[in-house]
Amino acid sequence: MKAHVYVTLKKTVLDPQGQAIHNALKKMQYQGIEDVRQGKYFELRLDDTLDAASARAEVDRIAREVLTNPVIEEYTFELE
Amino acid sequence: MKAHVYVTLKKTVLDPQGQAIHNALKKMQYQGIEDVRQGKYFELRLDDTLDAASARAEVDRIAREVLTNPVIEEYTFELE
Repeated sequence: MKAHVYVTLKKTVLDPQGQAIHNALKKMQYQGIEDVRQGKYFELRLDDTLDAASARAEVDRIAREVLTNPVIEEYTFELE
Repeated sequence: MKAHVYVTLKKTVLDPQGQAIHNALKKMQYQGIEDVRQGKYFELRLDDTLDAASARAEVDRIAREVLTNPVIEEYTFELE
């Protein structure tokens, strides 16, 4: 089983990296891009000892306690 | 319209950040994690001048030419 975790800055937090990329894209004449936000992506491979429910709970705990800074970041995840 | 771009290291490339996280998770007694790989996640908001086909082509070009280092990274993306 695999988990895909997406950690992004909260909407209220300024994203200078995203803005820098957005400005670069405009200078390089790419079309139709209104905004860019950058975050982190984690792929966790889970072993077979976990059933779906405990895998979901464990990944949620890891995302919340280790992969995310709760002051400025939020997360979502999917199990595959 | 929104595009979600995921940039990860190629499978053949060592991922020291992912390994560091994996080791930390083991030390902190999290269960059932076989492997961790870290990548970058980009959220692009597209304006309405682009139809779905040209949005797909533009996002693919941006991912390939700007967001990814083709020597060590690969990308996937979704349109929403």
